Amino acid sequence: MKHKTSAPEAAPRTGVWLVGARGAISTCVVYGVHGLREGLLEPTGIVTETAPFQGLALAPLDGLVFGGHDVCQRELSRGALELVRQHILDPDLVASGAAYAHAYEARLRPGLLDQCDTGFADLDPRTVALSSQTPREQIAAVVADLEAFRRDNQLSSVVVVHLASAEAAREPRPEWNDLAAFERSLDAQVSHPASVLYAYAAFRARCSYVNFTPNLGSSIPALREYARQQGCAHCGNDGKTGETLVKTVLAPMFRQRALRVLSWQGYNMLGNRDGAVLADPAHKELKIRHKSDLLKELLDDQRVHGHVAIDYVPSLDDWKTAFDYIHFEGFLGAKMSLQFTWQGSDSALAAPLVLDLVRLVECAQRHGEAGELAATAPFFKAPIAGGSHDFAAQFAQLLDWAARLRSN
Amino acid sequence: MKHKTSAPEAAPRTGVWLVGARGAISTCVVYGVHGLREGLLEPTGIVTETAPFQGLALAPLDGLVFGGHDVCQRELSRGALELVRQHILDPDLVASGAAYAHAYEARLRPGLLDQCDTGFADLDPRTVALSSQTPREQIAAVVADLEAFRRDNQLSSVVVVHLASAEAAREPRPEWNDLAAFERSLDAQVSHPASVLYAYAAFRARCSYVNFTPNLGSSIPALREYARQQGCAHCGNDGKTGETLVKTVLAPMFRQRALRVLSWQGYNMLGNRDGAVLADPAHKELKIRHKSDLLKELLDDQRVHGHVAIDYVPSLDDWKTAFDYIHFEGFLGAKMSLQFTWQGSDSALAAPLVLDLVRLVECAQRHGEAGELAATAPFFKAPIAGGSHDFAAQFAQLLDWAARLRSN
Amino acid sequence: MKHKTSAPEAAPRTGVWLVGARGAISTCVVYGVHGLREGLLEPTGIVTETAPFQGLALAPLDGLVFGGHDVCQRELSRGALELVRQHILDPDLVASGAAYAHAYEARLRPGLLDQCDTGFADLDPRTVALSSQTPREQIAAVVADLEAFRRDNQLSSVVVVHLASAEAAREPRPEWNDLAAFERSLDAQVSHPASVLYAYAAFRARCSYVNFTPNLGSSIPALREYARQQGCAHCGNDGKTGETLVKTVLAPMFRQRALRVLSWQGYNMLGNRDGAVLADPAHKELKIRHKSDLLKELLDDQRVHGHVAIDYVPSLDDWKTAFDYIHFEGFLGAKMSLQFTWQGSDSALAAPLVLDLVRLVECAQRHGEAGELAATAPFFKAPIAGGSHDFAAQFAQLLDWAARLRSN
Amino acid sequence: MKHKTSAPEAAPRTGVWLVGARGAISTCVVYGVHGLREGLLEPTGIVTETAPFQGLALAPLDGLVFGGHDVCQRELSRGALELVRQHILDPDLVASGAAYAHAYEARLRPGLLDQCDTGFADLDPRTVALSSQTPREQIAAVVADLEAFRRDNQLSSVVVVHLASAEAAREPRPEWNDLAAFERSLDAQVSHPASVLYAYAAFRARCSYVNFTPNLGSSIPALREYARQQGCAHCGNDGKTGETLVKTVLAPMFRQRALRVLSWQGYNMLGNRDGAVLADPAHKELKIRHKSDLLKELLDDQRVHGHVAIDYVPSLDDWKTAFDYIHFEGFLGAKMSLQFTWQGSDSALAAPLVLDLVRLVECAQRHGEAGELAATAPFFKAPIAGGSHDFAAQFAQLLDWAARLRSN
Repeated sequence: MKHKTSAPEAAPRTGVWLVGARGAISTCVVYGVHGLREGLLEPTGIVTETAPFQGLALAPLDGLVFGGHDVCQRELSRGALELVRQHILDPDLVASGAAYAHAYEARLRPGLLDQCDTGFADLDPRTVALSSQTPREQIAAVVADLEAFRRDNQLSSVVVVHLASAEAAREPRPEWNDLAAFERSLDAQVSHPASVLYAYAAFRARCSYVNFTPNLGSSIPALREYARQQGCAHCGNDGKTGETLVKTVLAPMFRQRALRVLSWQGYNMLGNRDGAVLADPAHKELKIRHKSDLLKELLDDQRVHGHVAIDYVPSLDDWKTAFDYIHFEGFLGAKMSLQFTWQGSDSALAAPLVLDLVRLVECAQRHGEAGELAATAPFFKAPIAGGSHDFAAQFAQLLDWAARLRSN
Repeated sequence: MKHKTSAPEAAPRTGVWLVGARGAISTCVVYGVHGLREGLLEPTGIVTETAPFQGLALAPLDGLVFGGHDVCQRELSRGALELVRQHILDPDLVASGAAYAHAYEARLRPGLLDQCDTGFADLDPRTVALSSQTPREQIAAVVADLEAFRRDNQLSSVVVVHLASAEAAREPRPEWNDLAAFERSLDAQVSHPASVLYAYAAFRARCSYVNFTPNLGSSIPALREYARQQGCAHCGNDGKTGETLVKTVLAPMFRQRALRVLSWQGYNMLGNRDGAVLADPAHKELKIRHKSDLLKELLDDQRVHGHVAIDYVPSLDDWKTAFDYIHFEGFLGAKMSLQFTWQGSDSALAAPLVLDLVRLVECAQRHGEAGELAATAPFFKAPIAGGSHDFAAQFAQLLDWAARLRSN
Repeated sequence: MKHKTSAPEAAPRTGVWLVGARGAISTCVVYGVHGLREGLLEPTGIVTETAPFQGLALAPLDGLVFGGHDVCQRELSRGALELVRQHILDPDLVASGAAYAHAYEARLRPGLLDQCDTGFADLDPRTVALSSQTPREQIAAVVADLEAFRRDNQLSSVVVVHLASAEAAREPRPEWNDLAAFERSLDAQVSHPASVLYAYAAFRARCSYVNFTPNLGSSIPALREYARQQGCAHCGNDGKTGETLVKTVLAPMFRQRALRVLSWQGYNMLGNRDGAVLADPAHKELKIRHKSDLLKELLDDQRVHGHVAIDYVPSLDDWKTAFDYIHFEGFLGAKMSLQFTWQGSDSALAAPLVLDLVRLVECAQRHGEAGELAATAPFFKAPIAGGSHDFAAQFAQLLDWAARLRSN
Repeated sequence: MKHKTSAPEAAPRTGVWLVGARGAISTCVVYGVHGLREGLLEPTGIVTETAPFQGLALAPLDGLVFGGHDVCQRELSRGALELVRQHILDPDLVASGAAYAHAYEARLRPGLLDQCDTGFADLDPRTVALSSQTPREQIAAVVADLEAFRRDNQLSSVVVVHLASAEAAREPRPEWNDLAAFERSLDAQVSHPASVLYAYAAFRARCSYVNFTPNLGSSIPALREYARQQGCAHCGNDGKTGETLVKTVLAPMFRQRALRVLSWQGYNMLGNRDGAVLADPAHKELKIRHKSDLLKELLDDQRVHGHVAIDYVPSLDDWKTAFDYIHFEGFLGAKMSLQFTWQGSDSALAAPLVLDLVRLVECAQRHGEAGELAATAPFFKAPIAGGSHDFAAQFAQLLDWAARLRSN
């Protein structure tokens, strides 16, 4: 029943530059696209392969060329075998994709280290060397990598996807609000989160940009200004893969039915590297903020008692397990409840969305849209362009955008 | 924080005729409206009291006058105390509503017995007498009751709401498809489900009509034709109060995210009279069919394995508890799951929706809409007018209808 | 089906002195015993009323006389109505118990304030006055209250039950380890937790003593020594009412089946006064320690990853809701899971156990047993006398004790 | 961390004859023992490898020799790869065990077809030929297979383990109650369930016998008499692997705490061959009876409302998922609930218990115990020797037996 995805003859080649190129999501993306190219996999989970997106001039999946940055040196095949052990990747798929993965690894470059990153066992020494350079020098290195990637692979466009670990929350800096001030701060060698430097470099190299993490990335006003100036389409933050996705379809139901949510407790357990990083409260902060904020907007009720916990449970590996307990009141003051348990592989959920987002921002930029791509809101916990968190409303908006684009 | 709902001075009075007038839902409706009139309750769960419905010329809740049919004689206060014991009605509300409930009971009339109904301990002897009359005579009795109700209470409009027990599934009859054939079958004293006779009588008396049950009611083509001919607005079938509501917001999420649902198991446990009646497979059949059918439409996938069970668990009383297990496949063939448990009072969930539907069909008919009111789809498991079961889509359609009506 | 519990004619009267006499558990105890006396309730949840305890010379439930200490002045009937609203107490029971509750309140005395207690809105001014006295004076006041209670009510024995709020965790003090040192510290006006002063006073007055809370109470070595010296039976700490109870029957199952538990996550949500106090990390500490420690003992495995959270969810009131996720490994390295949700009224679960413990320590002390009563282990999260946490093993031990006592 | 299980030099060799030799449990047993022999696996899930069983003269796991009967011809490696796909067997384990599995397959013989078995796609033609022979001839064939197995492999003892599919429930026959009558019925060519013929043949060949299925096997009085006569130890029925295991630790907790269970709903979903067979109501009957019966005994309450469902959910494969909802009443009539979801691989749970049972019956018979081995009760849903279903009590009894044997 599997099918090869067909690529039109003269398709322009799109490059995908993964920041966090050796992580679990990237590994799933690379082996997954190999599987789709070879007809070993169905495109399950890829939204842009469903009916409503037929007829859009999206980059063909099998024409994508992957490269990226990472701060670690771990071989991709080692991570892949770990995902086999975790029952996420199929051993036969990994075996058949060895050459494809090898070619990908040849395109990888040393990444930028965030000041707050610690405890990486297998740091790339070139990354360590980069970390002692000035912000301007680091940006120049990233830009050079992106330009070489584009040139060497004859790519018509490049999309940078930020998939690195959650950065520690930091106090907002005034220079983030204004491009000129931000430029001056770079000159003054002020330190910024690595995700911000990456986003700046992406726009400098006129790449589209996707931030799938809770990190700041392109979301600060200075970079939103820069993206528009450079004609770059971008989107983020923080991929909406599991528990939050469910939350954003259930909460509107309560509101539309005039049922009053009293309390919404969300307990997230996960065990992968993401979980290990998030075990640190500083790194967890942004993620919890994204998960918490949307509830009051969705329910249009400030009284609701909400709580979100993220706990590191090593034995779960990549299998995120979330338990939500929703206590609500109906007519006559009757108290009722809904509880759910979500059990899903975070990486297998994220990977197809990464492919969707790459195709959407690339298509938008190609059609002349610059700045944050509001239509991608259903993919994110904290959409840069704001708007409602109601998934159905967000998805309707995405379909509208697709329809408009198709009719142009 | 409670507030009295305000009634405009010269508001036309709307009558609500409850079929199953002594049942749990009707009891919640009557004491609930008393509580709203007296400012003892907030309008939690009443959709038409939320912001999007402001400005629609809906019948004011405190101008509603209630009457109805029942086949049993049980006093309303006995049922109310039972609901107090089940922690659904507040004892103070029941005490303060005694006079209001008494006045309501004075307006009740003996109902029609469905041929398949059995085992009612406290049958009204007048109902037994009615049951030996011809269909035409039974209809005439119902029409006379409705007209007396309208006249005696100076009502500008009357809405009949069907809330009686689930009828046994029957083989479809050819005369249901055509009004003329149906009329001939009445002359020929062919037996029809009581719900069908009620709906026919409602239209004859030019009442609006709501079928909150899985019974046939007004959904057969013959009566849909009759409703249009008489200028009556109507809607149904089978109120979407709990597990199915959740299903119709979750299933679209899976489809829109291109996640493939492999199996969806739904286990419903309930213990009220509805549960006792549904313990009989014949009576359960229609309900299960409504709960099952919508899955394949929602998921747009014929391969999905679905199963719905309804089990009688006496100790739960009115507290419907449903467990759903959803097994799905993501990218890379990874199998994941979502499970939820819903615990809600069926009657407290249904009562406010009854009030919403009364207001919506009354408003529609008053504005000249006849026939099935498609905009009420989000309230039903098996909307008469068909269409998608996607709750968000249905709700958007309802809002469109409201906006159109408001702008007229 | 309800029955009056029969009291033998010449039964000696047992007094029960509740510390935290106006709290939810005490309220359930008092109205519950009234209900049992009047035949309005079945003895559901009372272990000592089940078959294995027949034939033990336990104090009859309807011969118990209640009094107690509290730091607040709130009327018992107000707390009772609150429990009616929460669907724990029946309104008719509360109405019929008014005189009984009134008589109980007449026996209440101002309690001791723990140094760390804060934020009580309705403090008894006599309690405030007491709090400025020396430890010795506070103890004397408590002893005087206990002796007056015994004398005024012609009681053959008095059991003090500690039901006050969770105290903040404190650093252990060296004088807790030795009675003589403890006595000297009292002379030196060293401050100790209120629960410790209460326990000391109870033993001084030769009362039996039950500590149902996580507070230190009688568990410090100094007081264990004192109890033996005074011939007092006592037990504690921290009633095992819900989630932990389930844990201590499930964990042995995994161990006995040689299934390796990898992770055990426990999430507790509650909304009563207990919950509000436990929202403060200092007050939560002891409780979480009790809940966490037992896992490694039960599983006999130091590798297991365990986590316990207690979260304040106001809307739940007294209805403790706990979600546990247990991740385990079976043969062939297959990872499996068990998850459970417990929904119970903490006070209704605790109250009958209080009655059981009163009867057991009273019976033990009457039969000459002094010191900690190891047989009560199945009732506690942190049994003073130590031993296994395996509920079935603990219960077998309790049955052995009962059999020995019966055969004496 | 893995370790090789050590076999004493001169250990007598024990043979294990698996009926259902190509099924999922047998496959897990065979590859699992290979893994243990090679130090690739830890003995997780094997009860007889835990501390309390040290010092018992049990057959060493790596001295076991496997053979068996099956009615199908499917190659073991095909089944193994299926279990790899289901994430139960590790692909490396299967690869390394190829020779071991091959040797095992060379010892397999055609099995007996139960009259009610239908729909097997890959029947062994020799099985079909056997099925037209008389019961006496079929028994003789099985006995000959067992004796050849013992002789060819120089086995000191042989244990027959029944692991075949669930047979259809049949009306009890009078000749099952008496050995002489049963013998006469064999002469008269009366048809009996295949499981009964196997058990008879096992005893005739003086083998020990374990019935892990709900089938009748050795549990009829006639065969229990025969076992004693032949000096054979045996046990059954119906391995207690998952949901029922949990039930038999939770139910005693409710009884011991005097909490009244009102309703216990059990929903079992499974998708393996067992599930497919159990989708047929006749085949499901015995299993549901075993699962239901124990509740009333465990709770010592005839009023409890219990319901057990077993549903076939193909996508779950071997991963049995069970949801239980327990509704109970505490003090003051407060209604509470406990719900749990169990997710486990049925075969990985069963396989180690099979190894335990083999060792226990072999040891018992070697020590001169004949007849049903009551000490094995904790392993079964319907222990032949009866007794309580309370898992903790059963396990204590097993430990007593082990201690007695050790001290002999």
